[in-house]
Amino acid sequence: MSQLFGSIEAGGTKFVCAVGNEELIIIDSTAFPTSKPEETLQKAVDYFKTFEPSLAAISVGSIGPIDIDEASETYGYVTSTPKPYWADVDMIGFLKAQLDVPMYFTTDVNASAYGEKVLDSSLNSLVYYTIGTGIGAGALQGEDFIGGVSHAEMGHTFVKRHPDDLDFAGVCPFHRDCLEGVAAGPSLEARTGVRGENIPLDSPVWDIQAYYIAQAAVAATLTLRPEKIIFGGGVMAQDHMMNRVRKQFSELLNGYVPVPDLADYLQTPKIANNASATVGNFALAKRAYLRHNQD
Amino acid sequence: MSQLFGSIEAGGTKFVCAVGNEELIIIDSTAFPTSKPEETLQKAVDYFKTFEPSLAAISVGSIGPIDIDEASETYGYVTSTPKPYWADVDMIGFLKAQLDVPMYFTTDVNASAYGEKVLDSSLNSLVYYTIGTGIGAGALQGEDFIGGVSHAEMGHTFVKRHPDDLDFAGVCPFHRDCLEGVAAGPSLEARTGVRGENIPLDSPVWDIQAYYIAQAAVAATLTLRPEKIIFGGGVMAQDHMMNRVRKQFSELLNGYVPVPDLADYLQTPKIANNASATVGNFALAKRAYLRHNQD
Repeated sequence: MSQLFGSIEAGGTKFVCAVGNEELIIIDSTAFPTSKPEETLQKAVDYFKTFEPSLAAISVGSIGPIDIDEASETYGYVTSTPKPYWADVDMIGFLKAQLDVPMYFTTDVNASAYGEKVLDSSLNSLVYYTIGTGIGAGALQGEDFIGGVSHAEMGHTFVKRHPDDLDFAGVCPFHRDCLEGVAAGPSLEARTGVRGENIPLDSPVWDIQAYYIAQAAVAATLTLRPEKIIFGGGVMAQDHMMNRVRKQFSELLNGYVPVPDLADYLQTPKIANNASATVGNFALAKRAYLRHNQD
Repeated sequence: MSQLFGSIEAGGTKFVCAVGNEELIIIDSTAFPTSKPEETLQKAVDYFKTFEPSLAAISVGSIGPIDIDEASETYGYVTSTPKPYWADVDMIGFLKAQLDVPMYFTTDVNASAYGEKVLDSSLNSLVYYTIGTGIGAGALQGEDFIGGVSHAEMGHTFVKRHPDDLDFAGVCPFHRDCLEGVAAGPSLEARTGVRGENIPLDSPVWDIQAYYIAQAAVAATLTLRPEKIIFGGGVMAQDHMMNRVRKQFSELLNGYVPVPDLADYLQTPKIANNASATVGNFALAKRAYLRHNQD
C-alpha cells in the first residue's frame, strides 16, 4: 500500500489537517477552529487515526514562537504565543502519545515557504509572510530554513510609524506597535471599529497598513536578499493591497539594491487555496520519514 | 616557502591591508585613508606586490553594496554605495589586473563575522554589526553567509523613531531616516553640531542612538535567531553604549523569545584591535585558495 504523509497547519484561527500521497497531492483534508489546545489537538489525532497504517509521517506547521530544538526539554512546545490558551503547550508530545510516526515540527510560515519551493524548485531563496490575525514569516536559503538557534519570528520587528498613525498605540500584547501590532488584521479593526473586510477601499488605513508591510519587505530584502517575497493571507490576496505594498516598497527601498520586477518579486502564493503550508508539510513529512529510515 | 594570505578591509574611512600566515596570524599590516578609488586601490596593489611570490590568495571585505555574484557582469564592483566616488567601481577587476592570485570578495562586515567565528569555532550562527560612519551587518548560519542572491545590507532597514527624535530628518542619502540615517556616527554630529567623541555622556542623544541600535538587535534576533550579536566600531567599544543598548533591547524584546544572558549575547568583538575583518579575510582567502586548487 502506498504511503501517506500528514500535514497539520496549526493556525491562530483554524487547524487544517490533510493527508497527501508520495507525489504530495492532497488526498483528503479537514479544518476546524483553533479552540482550546487539548480539544483541538485531539481532533487532529482522531483525523489521522483514520489513515493508519498508511500514514508514514506528519509535519506540523504551527503558530509560534515554538521550540524546534530537539535537544531542548520543551521541544515540540508552542512557547510564548500571544494566542490565548496556547502558550506552553506540548503540541508534539500530545500527538506523539497517540500517533506513532516520525514528526517534523516547524512554523506555519516555514511550512508555507517550503511548499512554495516545492512548486518552484528553481527558487533558491525566498521569504513567505502571512498577514492575518497575526504576522509571521518563514525563510529559506537553499534547503535550510533561516534561523540559527530557532525559527524566524519576523512579525514582531519594529517599523517606522506612519506620520498619520502616530496616535495609534498598536495591539501586540508583547510589543504594542511592532509590525504585527500595527499591521495585522486586528489593528485595522482597532483603528476603525470596523472589521477589515468591511473597511472601504478608499480608507486611508489601507495605505498605512501597506506602508508597514512594505517596510517588512524592505527589511527582508536587505537582510536576506531573497529571490522572491511571497505574501499569504486574505488581506494580501486583494490586488489593491499588493499594489499598494509594491508602490511603497519601491519608494522606501529607493533603488538601494537591485531587485527583480516587483510584479515578480512581491507576489501572492503560487499554490492555490491557501495550501502552501499543506504542500510544504507533506514534503517536510516525507523528508522526515526518509531521514528516519536512514538512521 | 610558506604561504601568505592577504586581507583588504576596504572601509569607508580607511583601507587596512594585511598579510597573514597559514595559522591566520598577522605578519604585516598597513593602513591608509580611503581616498579616490584608483589611488587607494593602487596603494593596496603596491603593498601586496612586496609579498609576491609567497602571496597565495587575497580576500577583500568591502563597504557595500557590492556585487558578489560571480555570474554577473559587474562581479567585484562596489555598486550603489553612498560613499562619494566609490559607486560603480570595479574593485576586484583593478586588483586582478595586477595581482594574479585567487580572490574572495565579500562585505567588510561578513569578513568580520567570519573572523569572529574563526576565534570561536563553536559558534554556529552570529551577526556582526559595525556602527561607524555607516552601519552594516554580516551574518553567518553554519558556514554560509546569510544572503540569497547577494549579501546582507542590514544597516538600511527602517526603525521606529524615538519620541524625542521625531524632528530629526536623518542623514542617509538613500533613505533619510533608515537605521544608518539616524544611528550612524554622522547622525550624532548632525543632531548636536558636535562630533560624537566630543558629546558628553549625559547627552540624551546616546539613549536615542541606543534605542535604534537596540531595535536593530531585536530585528536580527527575530529574523536570524543567532547565538550572538557582535558590535564593532568605536561607538560600541564604549561600555556605556553597550549597556544602554542591552537595557533597551531587553525592554523592546520583552521576553518574546529566549536569548542568552545579554552580557554574552550582545557583545563587542573578541578579536582585539579591530582585526576581526582581517582575520576573517585571511580565513576566507585560505578557503578561496584551497577551493581554487581543488578545481
